[in-house]
Amino acid sequence: MKSATPNDLSTTEFGPDLCRSASQCFETLWRDAPTLKCRALNIAGARVLDAGVNCSGSLAAGLALGRLCLGDLATVRYAPTSPQDLVGLVVTIQTDYPVLACLGGQYAGWPVSVGDYFAMASGPMRGLRGKEAMLEELKLSRQATKEDLAVGVLESDKLPGEDVIESMAEECGVDPGRLCLAIAPSTSIAGSAQVVSRSVETALHKLHALDFDVTRVMSAHGDAPLPPPAKLGDTIGGIGRTNDSMLYGARVTLWVDAEDDLIESVASKVPSDSSEDHGQPFAKIFKQYDYDFYKVDPMLFSPAMVTIHSLRSGKTWRHGQLNQDVLRESFGL
Amino acid sequence: MKSATPNDLSTTEFGPDLCRSASQCFETLWRDAPTLKCRALNIAGARVLDAGVNCSGSLAAGLALGRLCLGDLATVRYAPTSPQDLVGLVVTIQTDYPVLACLGGQYAGWPVSVGDYFAMASGPMRGLRGKEAMLEELKLSRQATKEDLAVGVLESDKLPGEDVIESMAEECGVDPGRLCLAIAPSTSIAGSAQVVSRSVETALHKLHALDFDVTRVMSAHGDAPLPPPAKLGDTIGGIGRTNDSMLYGARVTLWVDAEDDLIESVASKVPSDSSEDHGQPFAKIFKQYDYDFYKVDPMLFSPAMVTIHSLRSGKTWRHGQLNQDVLRESFGL
Amino acid sequence: MKSATPNDLSTTEFGPDLCRSASQCFETLWRDAPTLKCRALNIAGARVLDAGVNCSGSLAAGLALGRLCLGDLATVRYAPTSPQDLVGLVVTIQTDYPVLACLGGQYAGWPVSVGDYFAMASGPMRGLRGKEAMLEELKLSRQATKEDLAVGVLESDKLPGEDVIESMAEECGVDPGRLCLAIAPSTSIAGSAQVVSRSVETALHKLHALDFDVTRVMSAHGDAPLPPPAKLGDTIGGIGRTNDSMLYGARVTLWVDAEDDLIESVASKVPSDSSEDHGQPFAKIFKQYDYDFYKVDPMLFSPAMVTIHSLRSGKTWRHGQLNQDVLRESFGL
Repeated sequence: MKSATPNDLSTTEFGPDLCRSASQCFETLWRDAPTLKCRALNIAGARVLDAGVNCSGSLAAGLALGRLCLGDLATVRYAPTSPQDLVGLVVTIQTDYPVLACLGGQYAGWPVSVGDYFAMASGPMRGLRGKEAMLEELKLSRQATKEDLAVGVLESDKLPGEDVIESMAEECGVDPGRLCLAIAPSTSIAGSAQVVSRSVETALHKLHALDFDVTRVMSAHGDAPLPPPAKLGDTIGGIGRTNDSMLYGARVTLWVDAEDDLIESVASKVPSDSSEDHGQPFAKIFKQYDYDFYKVDPMLFSPAMVTIHSLRSGKTWRHGQLNQDVLRESFGL
Repeated sequence: MKSATPNDLSTTEFGPDLCRSASQCFETLWRDAPTLKCRALNIAGARVLDAGVNCSGSLAAGLALGRLCLGDLATVRYAPTSPQDLVGLVVTIQTDYPVLACLGGQYAGWPVSVGDYFAMASGPMRGLRGKEAMLEELKLSRQATKEDLAVGVLESDKLPGEDVIESMAEECGVDPGRLCLAIAPSTSIAGSAQVVSRSVETALHKLHALDFDVTRVMSAHGDAPLPPPAKLGDTIGGIGRTNDSMLYGARVTLWVDAEDDLIESVASKVPSDSSEDHGQPFAKIFKQYDYDFYKVDPMLFSPAMVTIHSLRSGKTWRHGQLNQDVLRESFGL
Repeated sequence: MKSATPNDLSTTEFGPDLCRSASQCFETLWRDAPTLKCRALNIAGARVLDAGVNCSGSLAAGLALGRLCLGDLATVRYAPTSPQDLVGLVVTIQTDYPVLACLGGQYAGWPVSVGDYFAMASGPMRGLRGKEAMLEELKLSRQATKEDLAVGVLESDKLPGEDVIESMAEECGVDPGRLCLAIAPSTSIAGSAQVVSRSVETALHKLHALDFDVTRVMSAHGDAPLPPPAKLGDTIGGIGRTNDSMLYGARVTLWVDAEDDLIESVASKVPSDSSEDHGQPFAKIFKQYDYDFYKVDPMLFSPAMVTIHSLRSGKTWRHGQLNQDVLRESFGL
């Protein structure tokens, strides 16, 4: 039924280069630092953009950090909610590169621990580090070239010291001068916004954990409420509210090119309510497990509601639901 | 009451040139093809962007095709819905050139039929072809100059052959090398998005069919739910869902500079519920009429809900309503 | 607890220059005048962009005028509402410079009165004029330099004459050739949109009137319904509808870095329902006071609903509520 084969001028079979697009994104962010109410720091030669540790940061910086993690391969925006909603804003994400941008970039898969410094790290630099099994499986890691910048985001309320920078650069296989970081605490405006831009990422990561072939997800959209920043310095509180925004407030839509039975076998398990830990604020759950992430059911970390459209059969699966009561308790409303 | 006549520096009484702005829009689209997950093809010398026939296309390509039809004289975006809504996203359109962009550009007024090839064609190239009575009436057609590109969008699941391209170029009065097309099936992500960006266009076309002077519509806004793509290859299903998104899900607001009695005489007739065919999914209606578009009541093709603000009297007319039940049936939810 | 002090490359402690960013914004607006359906006028050497007096203006011009008042230090957009809402669109504003952009720029603090000409003036030019106590207190005024453009917006249905221009330029301390104005009546599309982009501004101004240190407001977001334009020439009607959009329809969220007791002492007083004049359409209230603004309770001018997040304690205050009944009466729906 095909018409005569046309002359295909397309030069690329493969998607964009995550490292390269993240690098351009970082240069823009670095240039705009003052307008974003961020500080441009040099630590051990590395460029570090402080978006909330020793400065106020901003709503705009939150979106910029979200995009940086995603290597600029997604649209991240604020949108107003309806008056019935708990908070006035959601953070929306739309991407046609869900695996590359969300798992290759945005997933916080690097727990940076050097001396007494700790931060969760995300961003395309993880692919240059190459120690995550998921990145290997998905062929999302490669050795750094001389041209590469290692770009990432730290979630922490403390700036990294020179030892941290040197260790991170070494792990990525780049000179410290080619390491480009942005940092914000989970309790800051920018930090909370960038974390809740992860609605699609949590759905993708859960699908991967369920052994679903995530490369079948062609496009994705998500939104999640922007929580009130937690008490200054209360990192657990910040983690709690931003996680609850995902677990009880996020809605994700995925366009999937796969057989119905494959989708059917996972669809109801993707939302957070498939976990036995589901049902109370994350800070409470976390406390029950003595603040040890690895004891929390990994199946908990996913959006409240997930809709999957099959591009083959035209069928739709929708599972999970929003939980305003838990959000109200978590957000102190 | 006027103050002393100021020196008017405005150089143009007339709106922007639709062909020219569409040409610039196409060049951007062509350059961004790989990022939009589209294929850049050369067919008989014409540039054809495949946004969903032999490639996956993307959410971003859907917006880009929407803008291309509109000659870039409108803002087209996704916006999240409220959690009570059936689908997670609407496609919004905002324009201050409703007649030029929507009727001159976006209306699918050219049924391309060459040999056994068929596609509905839209876009500014229709004005160069000049065979539509509506375009003549509204003075929206003109002969192609040597500088013009003929820009348009095809809704089809099959690429046009060389004979189709040559025929289309000839009808537009341009060399095939100056024909610039984008194509997406109604069942693809990009195809469904670009079709449901037509909420304002359907309101304008209906007003024109009701003999209302559409040049009195100064500005317009619309939104419509993004339907789940229909089953791969099921063109009728794709047409059904995208039409239902308009007929039962679209909301349009028009700012009109006209006398109240003129508005009053048409306002209640603009929404789709003024048609006797209204009330069931479009695919069913279409089947009842043996899949012959020309048998369907032309008054059916309009948004579910239409709000008209008079810029003269300050009055507002609102008619029609959304129908979640029909949408649920149509979308398979 | 701080890590070794990093090398701070940040060059600016102070925010962006409002005058400069507004100047760039005006140049863009001036260049785009034809596309925005505005007229570019020269009055006594000053550049005056007519966005609705003798031309239709546009939805896009409404956003552009909103941004111009704000010196381009905010994001101003239309967003679709949910189908239950009275009107189809809200105007949203997001800013990380609420004091500078909203009070320094957007507040209509200059009642221009020359001969029989009257207009409410807003925009960064007010800081060069320097006669408002609030601007002095907040250190938002300074003398014009030779490089400064004086940029502002007039709300009026009449163009300013040469005498008005000369008087305004003199008050700002600039040559008429360096005065850059945009003008739109409250009954026009652009005029109504630019006025209802003031949701955050009204909250900030009210906070200032309540003797709260507004510099503690770090970031802000607001939205308000876009009202139907009032009857052509009915300035009171236009003022009424746009004010009602604020008083009964606007929702504002503020991120505040202050002690809880300071926030607690004002939070419930910020929304409009803290005023005894609250409860009926503004045009009625205005009439009761013989159309004398200075007799209306100044505490009335504020958003319907205000949410304050403390960046210190993590607590949230939410007060006020939307009033659809008054909006329905005001908007004639």
